[in-house]
Amino acid sequence: MKNYLSKRASGAKRSAIRELLKLTEKPGIISFAGGLPAPETFPHNEFAEIAADELRSHYENVLQYGLTEGSLTLRRAVADWLRPHGLDLSVDQMLVTTASQQALDLVSKAFLNEGDVIFVEAPTYLAALQTFNLFEADKIGIPLEDDGMDLDILEQEITKARREGKTLKAIYVIPDFQNPSGITMSLEKRKRLLEIARREELLIFEDDPYGQLRFAGESLPSIRSLDDEGRVLLMITFSKVLAAGMRLGVLIADDPFMDVLVRVKQATDLCTSKLTQHIAARYINEYGMEEHLKTIREVYHAKRDAMVSALEKYMPRDEGITWTNPEGGLFLWVRLPEVIDTEKMFPRALESKVAYVIGNAFYVDGSGRNEMRLSFSLGTPERIEEGIRRLAKVVSEELAAKRAQPVSA
Amino acid sequence: MKNYLSKRASGAKRSAIRELLKLTEKPGIISFAGGLPAPETFPHNEFAEIAADELRSHYENVLQYGLTEGSLTLRRAVADWLRPHGLDLSVDQMLVTTASQQALDLVSKAFLNEGDVIFVEAPTYLAALQTFNLFEADKIGIPLEDDGMDLDILEQEITKARREGKTLKAIYVIPDFQNPSGITMSLEKRKRLLEIARREELLIFEDDPYGQLRFAGESLPSIRSLDDEGRVLLMITFSKVLAAGMRLGVLIADDPFMDVLVRVKQATDLCTSKLTQHIAARYINEYGMEEHLKTIREVYHAKRDAMVSALEKYMPRDEGITWTNPEGGLFLWVRLPEVIDTEKMFPRALESKVAYVIGNAFYVDGSGRNEMRLSFSLGTPERIEEGIRRLAKVVSEELAAKRAQPVSA
Repeated sequence: MKNYLSKRASGAKRSAIRELLKLTEKPGIISFAGGLPAPETFPHNEFAEIAADELRSHYENVLQYGLTEGSLTLRRAVADWLRPHGLDLSVDQMLVTTASQQALDLVSKAFLNEGDVIFVEAPTYLAALQTFNLFEADKIGIPLEDDGMDLDILEQEITKARREGKTLKAIYVIPDFQNPSGITMSLEKRKRLLEIARREELLIFEDDPYGQLRFAGESLPSIRSLDDEGRVLLMITFSKVLAAGMRLGVLIADDPFMDVLVRVKQATDLCTSKLTQHIAARYINEYGMEEHLKTIREVYHAKRDAMVSALEKYMPRDEGITWTNPEGGLFLWVRLPEVIDTEKMFPRALESKVAYVIGNAFYVDGSGRNEMRLSFSLGTPERIEEGIRRLAKVVSEELAAKRAQPVSA
Repeated sequence: MKNYLSKRASGAKRSAIRELLKLTEKPGIISFAGGLPAPETFPHNEFAEIAADELRSHYENVLQYGLTEGSLTLRRAVADWLRPHGLDLSVDQMLVTTASQQALDLVSKAFLNEGDVIFVEAPTYLAALQTFNLFEADKIGIPLEDDGMDLDILEQEITKARREGKTLKAIYVIPDFQNPSGITMSLEKRKRLLEIARREELLIFEDDPYGQLRFAGESLPSIRSLDDEGRVLLMITFSKVLAAGMRLGVLIADDPFMDVLVRVKQATDLCTSKLTQHIAARYINEYGMEEHLKTIREVYHAKRDAMVSALEKYMPRDEGITWTNPEGGLFLWVRLPEVIDTEKMFPRALESKVAYVIGNAFYVDGSGRNEMRLSFSLGTPERIEEGIRRLAKVVSEELAAKRAQPVSA
């Protein structure tokens, strides 16, 4: 049957996270693995009221086909919401998507030929790599520093790739509280990245699922808001700020790209559900995002504090174990001594009823074997502390076991 | 900016239907153009109740990320619904999609390389052509006869394409009340098509949006139900049997293809909204599809009768004007004398406050210039009669105008 598959699909792999997640769903396991938003942040009662009203009184509209571009009512609500955040957008600059995963699919379809180079952070969002893989792009990983992508290395890699005759197309970045690392790109680097993109005639795919989830430090402008050429395509999702199950996002782009992206979306799924779009739009209009976001930020703030305190309390000292301390979002990143392979340690963690995502899933080159991603989004602060206590014990045991082993050549 | 686009996107065109539809939205126009299902068939009050309950009582589930494969509850409900219709499916043979347009995107991604041949009916569903275009397939149109695709011509075209060294991949068909023609493929042809596909090692993409909307004649088995090799990928949508705005469908396939399709869907949009999935699943489980479908069939039956009666009453005689008389679905097809170009006649129709879709939009080779698609799904039987009265007058006027003109060389 292999003969029937397209070349792009022959190489498609199941998400390592999704496969590992299945193992973490056993009862009793405290899982820091999934990137699931906290259900207590879903405005479900308000949604219930709006949904019932839309279906009773506006069913001829919400149950019918809609515009490929997305409902005007949602695009207007999003424009109003984002205006105070430095993005002054018209509805024509927005395309409603099935959350940001579909935005990744659409920009890949619209811009990536087989072999085109896309520069990504190392580590980066796993499912973005899957999409770029499916479109057979050449992904080049650029290491992350504490303030974002190492732009000196980016420039070196650009020069190198040009010398090799490659077609360079885009840079994919998650500037705020990056998935998986929790790292935020500095303002200086945002500006310099845009300059590099201009000079080198590259697009920037800016993925911003968490920007509104800042619970510490100062907000930074999106790269898109610094761009006056339409070079930055900005992906916003409602998955973390309203609810993942709505499957809604907005892709921000300008003509002539927007015109192409709309055509590509037409051929992809015609349009997104107007029911979910109207629930989101009316929620924004009737309840406002700012109050709601304030609550969400408090929820994640408390959870991050619980996780970081527990790491400080329980992780073995003097072993060079480090972790990031994100100012927002859902994730932090732990680097263990190089002697530890987090994939090999995974069964021990499951036995101890705690789970994480192995670091190397987030790298294009299989590095990050001694790293792991921890999500602090689920569970109470108490459960988080207990999970970290278990995890620290697993790490200690793994370190002790490694020391007991002879080093192989 | 052209340089930034992918090759596949450079050729992407906006849907002709969608552009024309904008012109038909003016007040007073009776439009037979859109393929919109009748809003009076949407079970909106039941949906309102279910949606409110799901959002109040099961929000932790329906507002969270779900399985890429789709909710088990929906797949089980669909299996129960389809079992009496000759499809005995396990949940593992179903992938929930954003209606059948996404199924087209997924099968294209999974199977079509640039230049691969896909055989399609001529005329065929316009938005399927857009998807196959985007994946740079080589579409070969096979004429429709009254009982479906002309399989002699299909065999000739297969031989010819093989001789030209092309890679043949699939046959795309809509066997029941085809969009746009309203034609149904006979059982004999279904069997022979499957034999040809077997012998020639081709896949069949079977698109079945209307099969359950039969209001006259005898039901025929789907091609998929005749297939014991997993060669047929069957696309089912809820757009016409529940509501288009739900954006839900099911793609039916077997391993090893299903495994690949799930991976492809993961990279495309992670998963479909559990909210809309659970609304559909609970509607099927609590209210049953059969009663509901009975009502829908009556609605469309009356509308088709109104359109066909009006065509008989108003269309000019003895001009060789013909139309199909579908036994189900939403569309019929009108063939006018060759002297008429339905695209050139379109402004005259709009002036007379009636609209249709031009025939050549549905052909891969630009033929069908004297043809048009009429949808009888919207409006009352009285409005449909009035619209056909207007359209017949437009046709008479166009014929008279053509006769008055000298024939150009």
